Amino acid sequence: MSQSENDKYLTSLGAKAKQASYALANLTATQKHALLKAIGQNLTANKGKILEANCQDVQAAREKGLSDAMIDRLLLNEQRLTSIINDIDNVITLEDPVGAEIESRLLDNGLRLSRRRVPLGVIGVIYEARPNVTVDIAVLALKTGNAVILRGGKETLTSNLALNEAIQSALKSQGLPETAVQLIASPDRTLVTGLLKLDKYVDMIVPRGGQHLQRLCAEQASIPVILGGIGICHLYVHHSANLEKALDVIANAKVQRPTVCNALDTLLVHEAVAQTFIPQICQHLVAQGVRFYGCEKTQTYLNQTHVEPAIEVVSASDETFATEWLSLTLGIKVVDSTSMAIEHIRQFSSGHSEAILTDNIHTANYFMNEVDASAVYVNASTRFTDGSQFGLGAEVAVSTQKLHARGPMGLEALTTYKWLAWGNYTVRD
Amino acid sequence: MSQSENDKYLTSLGAKAKQASYALANLTATQKHALLKAIGQNLTANKGKILEANCQDVQAAREKGLSDAMIDRLLLNEQRLTSIINDIDNVITLEDPVGAEIESRLLDNGLRLSRRRVPLGVIGVIYEARPNVTVDIAVLALKTGNAVILRGGKETLTSNLALNEAIQSALKSQGLPETAVQLIASPDRTLVTGLLKLDKYVDMIVPRGGQHLQRLCAEQASIPVILGGIGICHLYVHHSANLEKALDVIANAKVQRPTVCNALDTLLVHEAVAQTFIPQICQHLVAQGVRFYGCEKTQTYLNQTHVEPAIEVVSASDETFATEWLSLTLGIKVVDSTSMAIEHIRQFSSGHSEAILTDNIHTANYFMNEVDASAVYVNASTRFTDGSQFGLGAEVAVSTQKLHARGPMGLEALTTYKWLAWGNYTVRD
Repeated sequence: MSQSENDKYLTSLGAKAKQASYALANLTATQKHALLKAIGQNLTANKGKILEANCQDVQAAREKGLSDAMIDRLLLNEQRLTSIINDIDNVITLEDPVGAEIESRLLDNGLRLSRRRVPLGVIGVIYEARPNVTVDIAVLALKTGNAVILRGGKETLTSNLALNEAIQSALKSQGLPETAVQLIASPDRTLVTGLLKLDKYVDMIVPRGGQHLQRLCAEQASIPVILGGIGICHLYVHHSANLEKALDVIANAKVQRPTVCNALDTLLVHEAVAQTFIPQICQHLVAQGVRFYGCEKTQTYLNQTHVEPAIEVVSASDETFATEWLSLTLGIKVVDSTSMAIEHIRQFSSGHSEAILTDNIHTANYFMNEVDASAVYVNASTRFTDGSQFGLGAEVAVSTQKLHARGPMGLEALTTYKWLAWGNYTVRD
Repeated sequence: MSQSENDKYLTSLGAKAKQASYALANLTATQKHALLKAIGQNLTANKGKILEANCQDVQAAREKGLSDAMIDRLLLNEQRLTSIINDIDNVITLEDPVGAEIESRLLDNGLRLSRRRVPLGVIGVIYEARPNVTVDIAVLALKTGNAVILRGGKETLTSNLALNEAIQSALKSQGLPETAVQLIASPDRTLVTGLLKLDKYVDMIVPRGGQHLQRLCAEQASIPVILGGIGICHLYVHHSANLEKALDVIANAKVQRPTVCNALDTLLVHEAVAQTFIPQICQHLVAQGVRFYGCEKTQTYLNQTHVEPAIEVVSASDETFATEWLSLTLGIKVVDSTSMAIEHIRQFSSGHSEAILTDNIHTANYFMNEVDASAVYVNASTRFTDGSQFGLGAEVAVSTQKLHARGPMGLEALTTYKWLAWGNYTVRD
C-alpha cells in the first residue's frame, strides 16, 4: 500500500476502535464475562480452521529457513490452543476493576467529588511471533472494557487472522461491534510507525518485544507508550550472605528459565568473599551449562583455584555488562562495597529486577532504599517478577518505566479514572 | 551553541540531575521541610536581586514591544514575590506521599511483597513566561524527592536565573547537591527538543504551555510526557434544567476567568428549550462582554426574538468548535438530543472538563457514563477543575491524558512505586 493508503487504513481502524470503545466502556462485568465465554466457545468451535491457518504459517517459516526455536514459538497445536482457551476462564474469574469509585468526598462548596475507574479506551499492542498474545491481549482488553488494535509478527499473520476472526464473530454474537478487536492485516512495516502516531484514536501503546521495538516506540510514538520487558538483572552477594544457600538462588535466577526478562544477567560479588565464592559458583553453574564473562578479579580468583576441567571466563566489558543475555550466559564482577554494587546497577540496570543476598539487615535496607527498579529483592531470586507470581492474576506486560504502571501490569493498568462532580447548579466564587 | 555542544550541555545537566536524585530519594519529610524553609528564606534574602533581574526582563520586553498583558504575566513585584514565597509554606504543610507502603502481602512461597511509593527521579518541566512556575515546580519536585530540570520562557530568563541561584544556594546550605534544581541557561530552542530526548536521565516531561508546545512534546519526546492544560470545555443544557439557575452557572463557567483552561468554550442547548433559552443566555452574557459563534439554529432563534441592542452571532464551523477560546468568546450549538450533545463533545473535546445541567437523574447518569474527560460535572460550572479546588493542595499541571494521572495532578503524580520483596533465599519452582 502507498503511504496515503496506509494512513487511510489506520485512520479507519482507529476511528472504528474509538467508536467501539464507547460501546464497551459501560458494559457490566456479567456482560463482559458472557463475551469472554463466547470468545472461548468460538475459538473452540474454530480449532480446526485455526490450526490449519497456523500450519500455513509454520510451513512458510520452514520454507524461509527459520530456526527450530523460532518455529516452536509460532507453533500452535491442539494442546497449546486448548491451554490458550482455558486461560480465558481464568481471566473471567478475575475481579473487574472498572466502575469502582476510588475515592470520594464532599467539598465545602457542596460538590460531591469522586474518581471512577474507567477503561483507557483504545489500546494498541505490537508484538512478535507468539500467536497466543492475540487471544491473551484481546481478552484482557475486553475484560477491562477497552477496544484494541493488534499488530502481531508477520510470521503468524495467517494464524492471527484466524484467531481474530473467531474473536470478532463472538463480539458480533453478543451484539457488540466486531471492531472492538482489530488486527492490522498487512505485514507492511510502515503500519507500525503509523500506528504509533494515531494519537487521535489510540490511548496507549504496549510494545511486547525486544530492544529494537522498544526504542522504535519510545522514539516514534506520539501516544503514551509502556516500555518494558527488557531485563538486565543483577544479583549482589554481600559477604554476610549464606554462601551455600546463595548457590541455589543464583542458579535459580540464571538457569531455571534463561530466556525470560527476569532471568539473571550479572552477578556482583563482594570482594571479601569473592576469592572463595567465585570458583564455587562457577563450578556450580558450569555444570548447568552456563558460560561466563568476568571482570579481571573474577578471572584471577578462578585461575588461582584448581578447577577441573578448567572454566573459561571471557573478559567482561561495559558492552557485555549492558547486555540482556536471554541465554545461559552470566556476567560476573567483583565489587569492593555495597555502594559499588549499587553504582554498577545504576549504570547498567534496565530497571527491571535487582536482588541482594545478605544476612545483614542494614545492608539489606540500604540496598532496598538505594536501588531504583521495578522490583528489588532481598534474599530471593529475580525470577519472581511476573504478574502471576505477584498475584495479579493476569499480566499485560512488565513495565520498566515509572509512569502509570511499574513492574508486572495487571488489569488495573488497562484502566484510568475520571473525576466526577455532582453539584446543585454550583458556581465557583 | 553547536548541536554537539548542546548535546554535551544537556547530557551534563541530565547526569548531574540523576546523580542528585539519588541524594534526594531517601530524605525524610523533616529534611525536605527544612530544605523548603531554607529556600523560602533564601528567596526572601535575595528579593532585591530577584526584582532587579525581573526589571531587566520587563525592560527588554518593553523594548521588544510585547503587549501589556504579556508584560504583566512576566512581571514580579514585591507583593507577587512575597506571595510566591508564602506558597512554599503551604507546600510544607502538605502530606509527603513518599515512603508509604501502598499495599503488601505474604505470598505462598514466603515472599513478603509490598509496593513502596518513591520519587520519579528526574522531572523536566517546560513552561512559558510566568516566573512563579520556577519556584512552584522546584518546590513541588523537592517536596517529593525529585530532581528537576527547568526550561522557562526566554522572556524571563534573567528572573529565572536569579530565582534558580537562590534555590541552589539553599540546597547547598542544606548539604544537598545544587544540581537537584537546574535551569537551562540558554534561550536556544533546540535545547527543548534535546531535553525531550534525554531519556537516559529524565523520567517525565511536563509541558506547561499551549497547543504548540504540547504537540511538540507529544511528537518529539522519547520520555513519557504528561500532556495537559488544553481545555475545549462544553456545557450542555438539557431541557429539564432549571433555566434561571442555568444562566448563572454558564456565566460563571464563561466569564469568571475566561483565560484559563477550565473556562467554558462551547454551550450545547437542547432543541426543546433552545428557542427561549438562547436569547436569554445571549442577553445575559453579552452584558458581560461575551461574543458568540453559533450554529444556524442559534442564529435563527436569536433573530426571531426581539433583542435590543441586536446581538451579533458569527457562524460557527468545525474549526471554531475546535478552538480553545481563552477569551470572552463562546460557541453555541443546538442539539436534538443528549446523544447528539455527547457526540459533539466526543468530536471536539480535549478531554478536560465537561458539564451537563439537568434535573433528570437518568440523563445525568447517562452523560456521566458516556462522556470521557478528566472531569465530568452534573449541575456545576466547569471552573472547578484545578488542584486546590479538588483539595489536592498543590497542582503540578492538569493532565488531559489517561496514563499515570488524569485531571489535576497533586504531589502523588510526582511519584511512582517500586515492588519490594523480602525472602529467605527464596527460589522459584
